[in-house]
Amino acid sequence: MAQILTTTDDGFEAAFGALLGAKREEAEDVDTAVAAIITEVRARGDAALHDLTQRFDRLDLAETGMAFTPAQIEAEIAKVTPEDRAALELAAARIRAYHERQRPTDAVWQEENGARLGWRWTPVSAAGLYVPGGLASYPSSVLMNAIPAEVAGVERLVICCPTPGGVVNPLVLLAAQLAGVTEIYRLGGAQAIAALAYGTASIAPVDKITGPGNAYVAAAKRRVFGRVGIDMIAGPSEIVVIADADNDPDWIALDLLSQAEHDESAQSVLLTPDAGFGRAVIAAVERRLETLERRAIAGKSWHDHGAVIVTRDLEEAALLSNRMAPEHLELCVADPQILSERITHAGAIFLGAWTPEAIGDYVGGPNHVLPTARSARFSSGLSVLDFMKRTTLAQMTPEALRAIGPAAERLAISEGLEAHGLSVRARLDRLNDL
Amino acid sequence: MAQILTTTDDGFEAAFGALLGAKREEAEDVDTAVAAIITEVRARGDAALHDLTQRFDRLDLAETGMAFTPAQIEAEIAKVTPEDRAALELAAARIRAYHERQRPTDAVWQEENGARLGWRWTPVSAAGLYVPGGLASYPSSVLMNAIPAEVAGVERLVICCPTPGGVVNPLVLLAAQLAGVTEIYRLGGAQAIAALAYGTASIAPVDKITGPGNAYVAAAKRRVFGRVGIDMIAGPSEIVVIADADNDPDWIALDLLSQAEHDESAQSVLLTPDAGFGRAVIAAVERRLETLERRAIAGKSWHDHGAVIVTRDLEEAALLSNRMAPEHLELCVADPQILSERITHAGAIFLGAWTPEAIGDYVGGPNHVLPTARSARFSSGLSVLDFMKRTTLAQMTPEALRAIGPAAERLAISEGLEAHGLSVRARLDRLNDL
Repeated sequence: MAQILTTTDDGFEAAFGALLGAKREEAEDVDTAVAAIITEVRARGDAALHDLTQRFDRLDLAETGMAFTPAQIEAEIAKVTPEDRAALELAAARIRAYHERQRPTDAVWQEENGARLGWRWTPVSAAGLYVPGGLASYPSSVLMNAIPAEVAGVERLVICCPTPGGVVNPLVLLAAQLAGVTEIYRLGGAQAIAALAYGTASIAPVDKITGPGNAYVAAAKRRVFGRVGIDMIAGPSEIVVIADADNDPDWIALDLLSQAEHDESAQSVLLTPDAGFGRAVIAAVERRLETLERRAIAGKSWHDHGAVIVTRDLEEAALLSNRMAPEHLELCVADPQILSERITHAGAIFLGAWTPEAIGDYVGGPNHVLPTARSARFSSGLSVLDFMKRTTLAQMTPEALRAIGPAAERLAISEGLEAHGLSVRARLDRLNDL
Repeated sequence: MAQILTTTDDGFEAAFGALLGAKREEAEDVDTAVAAIITEVRARGDAALHDLTQRFDRLDLAETGMAFTPAQIEAEIAKVTPEDRAALELAAARIRAYHERQRPTDAVWQEENGARLGWRWTPVSAAGLYVPGGLASYPSSVLMNAIPAEVAGVERLVICCPTPGGVVNPLVLLAAQLAGVTEIYRLGGAQAIAALAYGTASIAPVDKITGPGNAYVAAAKRRVFGRVGIDMIAGPSEIVVIADADNDPDWIALDLLSQAEHDESAQSVLLTPDAGFGRAVIAAVERRLETLERRAIAGKSWHDHGAVIVTRDLEEAALLSNRMAPEHLELCVADPQILSERITHAGAIFLGAWTPEAIGDYVGGPNHVLPTARSARFSSGLSVLDFMKRTTLAQMTPEALRAIGPAAERLAISEGLEAHGLSVRARLDRLNDL
């Protein structure tokens, strides 16, 4: 049974604190192994990639080739059913339309003294996207990572995807094609991340690496951070649902279970002002758990980490949600817009009972790569901005330098940086000579 | 002597590659010590802070207090000269005006099927700014870190600044006041970062930590990353100057030296199509090095890491600069705007000979916290966005769900996530019943 907490109970703060602070995942310590793999790829390049892929994926890259050929890609994509293709195309179109609105704008303005200031956004030149193999190989994640990069204007987009025993998910290749990615390598694990960060004879290095992965991939991304940019290191998925009694308990139960089925470490929490509704949802979850395909995973997640919290009112529910700063937040209430204005920390908000979180995983438009583990307090989901960077611009005129140069000189002197001051003074002296 | 390279020479690519790849800084390995300090602060809270400050800063916090009182702050600020105050006020006003233009805009739009999509930006609730003590205690950095947070709307801004032997830089306190920061602790090193990330009885934890620091501070920031957000871990400073022959060699020499004087590991590079001008700049640097206060540092930086590269033309200079992706880039050429359009990777561009980089360090307006070590390939300088995060919004209507729900259901099934599909199906079935 998932626990039921009630905010008016004496022990609530302690119980809620425990829920907030619970460590749901033990990070596997693979750092030493990962360091060795990176060193090997840097030293031996392609030869190391061949050896490591043989060892971990039981695949002879000399036979299959390291990169998928266009013919290999087409042959795999041909296996996709028309229905799956249509669904993926709809998703790609909607994700692209949403992200195109995120393109940032440049700005340049002139001050009265003639100085021009501003900034300019430019895309990262090359980005690498890691796509897990096997069961967790999600075509939707390919779209969610590759399309923002494509919209940003990234010139070179690369995918690394392990193909254990040679098996690849055709939908992953179709998703890559829909996002315009043609450079795809049969590489996985820390060796793929090392190849993307440092390059080998046959793979040019990239500037930014994104995408989900197992403990080895996460540790490798941490290690190459700085050499290249990385996205967040995602933790297990979470959902908070705020629901009033005017909901179908079964809908809410399914929404909670759609996080729980991801991972035993996932967390699903219902906040409701109606204790009776909370109990009805718990009963509905248990009913669904009798037949759900992934009931072992979803059941363990729900029973270990799930919770129903009965609040005084919706306002208190919003306050508790803000303390959780959830990755996903559903507002299944009569006026979700009003309630959403009380939300200060959340990765993504789904407004109203007609917006199950699963819509956002696939076809809503917003990105499904979102901050986990309360990091929505300080970070955002993946976006076009993650594949761009801003260069600031400043151009002084003699008049502008005369106006603000002396202040710069004085501050330089106060900080003990003489050459800084002299670089301004030499110019001011010239102006005085003119 | 700094080295002179010429792009038409046979060995140029190898020499340029060596310059690009040179490791200028050996990171001190303090991670074990830092881990122990963080553990101690988490376990013993304020008592640990007292002990560690006694040990590292020879300061008895029981006597001075951990936080500066308003009276203590006023007493220190009273020592600032009117000239220094005016300079700092000018800097604060210009930095604020620039950063106010960075406030991002929210967006919500409606689709034909009635679905509403968009996003909303919200500020981080609490941010902590680390300010080094002693020599590298720069009031300008206080402004550059605190003002973007203030503009972002961060409610609680905290500064930690060590005061070894009780000594504090009055200009640092004035800069804090100008940026609206009143919560200032006499804490430094890894213990300050631990206190900001985890909190103690007397210091509430923050959500984001920014600011420069020594190896201990950098290692602590890496360790608490994830628990809180952090800014970049900055490396030694760099400048690239692209200059034609129509410049005063002494101005360019001073600009190169104003990076070199920061740190023996700093790097200053001149790219010029005119070999004679390049030699004249080298001579001017050597002349200035005879008298510069920080000539030991600046000389070592210039002689170990500096370079003059003679290029075929300005276009080639821009290409080489893009490969370096410098933190600072000066364009001292006849038409700097045209040349700036060829720049794809740089933290900040200073256009024209009347814009010495030092202007940007203090009073230009753009931020001086910028990506180092070629990370301008994938990251940007500090900005208002670093203190905000974006929440995505999605609200379906029954009609919208009918239009796109089946695609979501199909993709969920193809990914083996049954509950995801059922959460959509339950709603679609209701619509069919209606």
